[in-house]
Amino acid sequence: MAENDSLSDFLASAVDAAKRAGEIIRKGFYETKHVEHKGTVDLVTETDKACEDLIFNHLKQLYPTHKFIGEETTAAFGVVELTDEPTWIVDPLDGTTNFVHGFPFVCVSIGLTIGKVPTVGVVYNPIMNELFTGIRGKGAFLNGNPIKVSSQTELVKSLLATEAGTKRDKPTLDSYMNRINILLAKVRSLRMTGSCALNLCGIACGRLDLFYELGFGGPWDVAGGAVIVTEAGGLVYDPSGKDFDITAQRVAASNPLLKDAFVEALQQPE
Amino acid sequence: MAENDSLSDFLASAVDAAKRAGEIIRKGFYETKHVEHKGTVDLVTETDKACEDLIFNHLKQLYPTHKFIGEETTAAFGVVELTDEPTWIVDPLDGTTNFVHGFPFVCVSIGLTIGKVPTVGVVYNPIMNELFTGIRGKGAFLNGNPIKVSSQTELVKSLLATEAGTKRDKPTLDSYMNRINILLAKVRSLRMTGSCALNLCGIACGRLDLFYELGFGGPWDVAGGAVIVTEAGGLVYDPSGKDFDITAQRVAASNPLLKDAFVEALQQPE
Repeated sequence: MAENDSLSDFLASAVDAAKRAGEIIRKGFYETKHVEHKGTVDLVTETDKACEDLIFNHLKQLYPTHKFIGEETTAAFGVVELTDEPTWIVDPLDGTTNFVHGFPFVCVSIGLTIGKVPTVGVVYNPIMNELFTGIRGKGAFLNGNPIKVSSQTELVKSLLATEAGTKRDKPTLDSYMNRINILLAKVRSLRMTGSCALNLCGIACGRLDLFYELGFGGPWDVAGGAVIVTEAGGLVYDPSGKDFDITAQRVAASNPLLKDAFVEALQQPE
Repeated sequence: MAENDSLSDFLASAVDAAKRAGEIIRKGFYETKHVEHKGTVDLVTETDKACEDLIFNHLKQLYPTHKFIGEETTAAFGVVELTDEPTWIVDPLDGTTNFVHGFPFVCVSIGLTIGKVPTVGVVYNPIMNELFTGIRGKGAFLNGNPIKVSSQTELVKSLLATEAGTKRDKPTLDSYMNRINILLAKVRSLRMTGSCALNLCGIACGRLDLFYELGFGGPWDVAGGAVIVTEAGGLVYDPSGKDFDITAQRVAASNPLLKDAFVEALQQPE
């Protein structure tokens, strides 16, 4: 089987798994308002676990020699080292806070790395019915239509996205706010939607011009979106401007024209 | 004609106008990616103007004795004083930055005040196909289904929304960031989506628990959403905790259980 045929098969399998998991998410999403708070937390855990099991079972059956890294299994068994083997990296439910609150930015994120390079990506928002896909060398798509990053060249006209993260200690918050303050003086406006994977897809389809996040959960937040961004003509990089490290919990993304100015704006006295 | 019948008629007329304007917005929304930047700015202005003309013409024909306040006409002719007369207050396109960037939080907002009290409200997002409606004393609805505010009682479990506004001078940004820093230490997370009217509707349907904004455009940003929030069981108030003034460009909203704690958290040394 030619490599490109395999990659297409991998994508089709990932889309299939994402859509099935999406049904579970959609069902839970509209139930959260009808359960008590304790029940809501249980519902998140159950949905997360059910989606990861579904996706892993589906893909392991098709590709028994591949490796698997997931948010839930990592939480249970500790960090799994990323190797050069084909490795599926899965966030079964990105945007869990949104899921709990019924805020419509939730998604399944599935990425396949080969030689540690993000090669196939699927990000599916079952509430807004948006399916983002990408295969290395084959372009990026939203619901089957080709997408590309914005052509913006100026920070001052750029729409920036980031997230508030989960740390609430004063030094982290002060550093975080200081960086946003500096950035906000230079860009058009700021969006926070609560899903790292969907922010990457926002860059890929040109809804957002700039995105960075420091200290997100793990490689499952970025593995699917990274290939979608690059295949849409964008760049994924470390906020320092260095090469992107999928395991580093630091990410920035933009079109190529904005990278240098964005990296410069992101630097601040720590 | 009984008053309630009139209010139902007013709502039906406003929904009709909002849906027609929504078609213009939807068309423009998917075109912005295909025009040059200068063209994009023209497209916003044209869409804004076309939608306001459509809505005003539609409602003026039906209700020739009513008063009208709109963002576009106010920009052209200066502030129109709000009187006790039935007054339609219209934002033909809330979320213009989102419109330019293709970010899906855009809406038409139509509110009717009677005796200065928001009495009928329509907020329509034509991209996500969400129609929020409310009539004073008659409940609030999303696509025809009743909605209510969240039952959250604790700030620490609450999802907060605000906006970055448009001012980029250092004192404004510092004050703005300081307030967000203080709030973020107390709430679960923060969302910024770029539409004041849709933030109010997010409170109304319980997707968001807390919303405040200082220094937004004018009464057209809040006139439609205010009645939708109150009819969904929520409160709309000044961030100081005082009564809401629709002309003051200051708004906060939440369920009744969170108001006191939210108002306290919003206070800071100016």
